[in-house]
Amino acid sequence: MSPDWLDTIHWNPDGLIPAIAQETGTGKVLMLAWMNRESLQCTLETGEAVYWSRSRQRLWHKGESSGNTQRVVQMRLDCDRDTLLLEVEQRGGIACHTGRHNCFYHRYQDGDWQVVEPVLKDPDQMYGDKT
Amino acid sequence: MSPDWLDTIHWNPDGLIPAIAQETGTGKVLMLAWMNRESLQCTLETGEAVYWSRSRQRLWHKGESSGNTQRVVQMRLDCDRDTLLLEVEQRGGIACHTGRHNCFYHRYQDGDWQVVEPVLKDPDQMYGDKT
Repeated sequence: MSPDWLDTIHWNPDGLIPAIAQETGTGKVLMLAWMNRESLQCTLETGEAVYWSRSRQRLWHKGESSGNTQRVVQMRLDCDRDTLLLEVEQRGGIACHTGRHNCFYHRYQDGDWQVVEPVLKDPDQMYGDKT
Repeated sequence: MSPDWLDTIHWNPDGLIPAIAQETGTGKVLMLAWMNRESLQCTLETGEAVYWSRSRQRLWHKGESSGNTQRVVQMRLDCDRDTLLLEVEQRGGIACHTGRHNCFYHRYQDGDWQVVEPVLKDPDQMYGDKT
């Protein structure tokens, strides 16, 4: 049986809920990913963010390849019970697979999306040991 | 013809993209809602957040009933081009239809979701002129 706290969540038709990761201290929004029941339960049990990878259709322990895991400080649920907000400590200071601090590095300016955040670490270096 | 900046967005199969609203200054995450092409274009043109209401299936100019509109300071797009982050000025200091500052007022504690944010204004007062 599922615990009640999982049952009160409004999962979408695919059994998923969007989860926003926000950095503790800075308040910066790092990324948005998706969770299913199992990944949320893993997150609670391990204290580290575990998402559901829609592209790979498997549990995704954030940072499993790069080492840039996210320690969860607190979890929030919204009024409609269909969005999660995670306050996290971002290990390595890099949340994005492009080597940037966070994933929201395109800013709308002058009629298009401009890249406005620097690459802090070469992705080849981040994932080099896995190729 | 759609402008290019709209075409580079990865809309989901329903033609939508999730949009996170973050408060300028405080950095607090206020809410997550959805946008389609038209609502995003309206947002850009008016400078105020216009979402797509999935329940009502119509454009939703945030604050149209309560007056608590959101002035958009900047718009960001993530690495996968499938999530928006809006930095907004929340007029009235209330983003949630329950009369709270933001929608993420349930915190996971002691095995369940606990309400941890106060109601700042009675919703009946917020929407009273519309009933």
